[in-house]
Amino acid sequence: MNSVIILGSGNLATHLTKTFIKCKTIDLIQVYSRNLENITYLNGKVNITDDLQLLKEADIYVIAISDNAISNFSKNLSLKGKLVVHTSGSVHVNDLKGNFEKGVFYPLQTFTKEKKVKFKNIPICIETESNDQLEKLEKLASSISKNVYIIDSKQREKLHLSAVFINNFTNHLYSIAEEICKENKVPFEILLPLIKETAKKVSVMSPSESQTGPAKRNDTKTIEHQLEQLSDNQKYIYTILTKSIIKTYN
Amino acid sequence: MNSVIILGSGNLATHLTKTFIKCKTIDLIQVYSRNLENITYLNGKVNITDDLQLLKEADIYVIAISDNAISNFSKNLSLKGKLVVHTSGSVHVNDLKGNFEKGVFYPLQTFTKEKKVKFKNIPICIETESNDQLEKLEKLASSISKNVYIIDSKQREKLHLSAVFINNFTNHLYSIAEEICKENKVPFEILLPLIKETAKKVSVMSPSESQTGPAKRNDTKTIEHQLEQLSDNQKYIYTILTKSIIKTYN
Repeated sequence: MNSVIILGSGNLATHLTKTFIKCKTIDLIQVYSRNLENITYLNGKVNITDDLQLLKEADIYVIAISDNAISNFSKNLSLKGKLVVHTSGSVHVNDLKGNFEKGVFYPLQTFTKEKKVKFKNIPICIETESNDQLEKLEKLASSISKNVYIIDSKQREKLHLSAVFINNFTNHLYSIAEEICKENKVPFEILLPLIKETAKKVSVMSPSESQTGPAKRNDTKTIEHQLEQLSDNQKYIYTILTKSIIKTYN
Repeated sequence: MNSVIILGSGNLATHLTKTFIKCKTIDLIQVYSRNLENITYLNGKVNITDDLQLLKEADIYVIAISDNAISNFSKNLSLKGKLVVHTSGSVHVNDLKGNFEKGVFYPLQTFTKEKKVKFKNIPICIETESNDQLEKLEKLASSISKNVYIIDSKQREKLHLSAVFINNFTNHLYSIAEEICKENKVPFEILLPLIKETAKKVSVMSPSESQTGPAKRNDTKTIEHQLEQLSDNQKYIYTILTKSIIKTYN
């Protein structure tokens, strides 16, 4: 059984903490946060601390703090021989600074504090600097997820970049659709089944195969007519994406 | 019980035909296609024809052909007193030309011939020119779907425009992510759970509330670093969407 300590109390740290507590094959020893009040909800469940000097012994230390803070934070850890991993998509494993074994434990999903998360289906991308640490980390990841991938820092960076397109940018397109609906007093909920089906389709066929719409058909009449109905900002986005689709398929 | 005739044999026509045949409260009288071979699979199940002169009597005639063809095609129908509807998101009800009662029966979903479709959860947007035809059309729509909306041609046009953003453009963003993965030998499947969760989230909170990512945080360092990793076309799209997110939230 892996013994683990979590360092952090943000969205991901909270979801991981709750999941590790429930998992029978993980021994969550302690949770650290510089703001103790963020983790007092754990009183009676697991040891908590806001003092790095009081960190206990464990097999794996999981840093779940904001990307920019990881490198500096890790300098303060003296955990020789222990495995210390961060949980970020975009930070290189070597950005961990300190005298310990280095690794990454990156769950590729979008986390919201209020929304429950089941880790079972969330892909976890793992990496360790030295090969002899990999098995330990793989065991930890497999305890909570059935989709564990060994991914190096360069590949992880590209995954994270892809995620910006399929999560951040896609969500912004949903926002624009919501905006158009509001402006025209149409209930946005009518579009929810289409949003879901579009996302589901990509698991049965490649998105490049299932592309449809006026841009795919190079239907300039419809494109012009739709452009006329948009605000300036919407127009830019419509134009760039339409051009890209036309370029890709024609 | 509504008696219905379907005119067309494309994706939507095929899905509607199969659904109407199965539905106990719909009497599918006939299916018309100008290419009889497209509908010979219906032999023994329902009357088929490729001759508009041989159209039978029914309460509702459903035209499911390509948008550009609807107006001209409808001119050839002499169905005085009958309700004739088209199934397009972007065509005005008045683009139906001919001596009959006019209406629209628009299922808002993406249809692929190979992929099975359950109409039960698909929103159907209906419209009739005269009020006394509305009840009949509502009954037909409710027979196959539990989400029926009365939507006029102007609103429907906006819905269709919104659908371009959440289906066509979103799918193109998926393609770009797939492209980035392929270029870097990362399995695209790792991203599928994130795609699904992003789509699911929008049904529990507004997309404008759940926006995340470097653009939302105006994290220029990450933005610049990500831009460096993209091809020219990807860069344009990244830039326009990032600018739009920054403008929206900062």
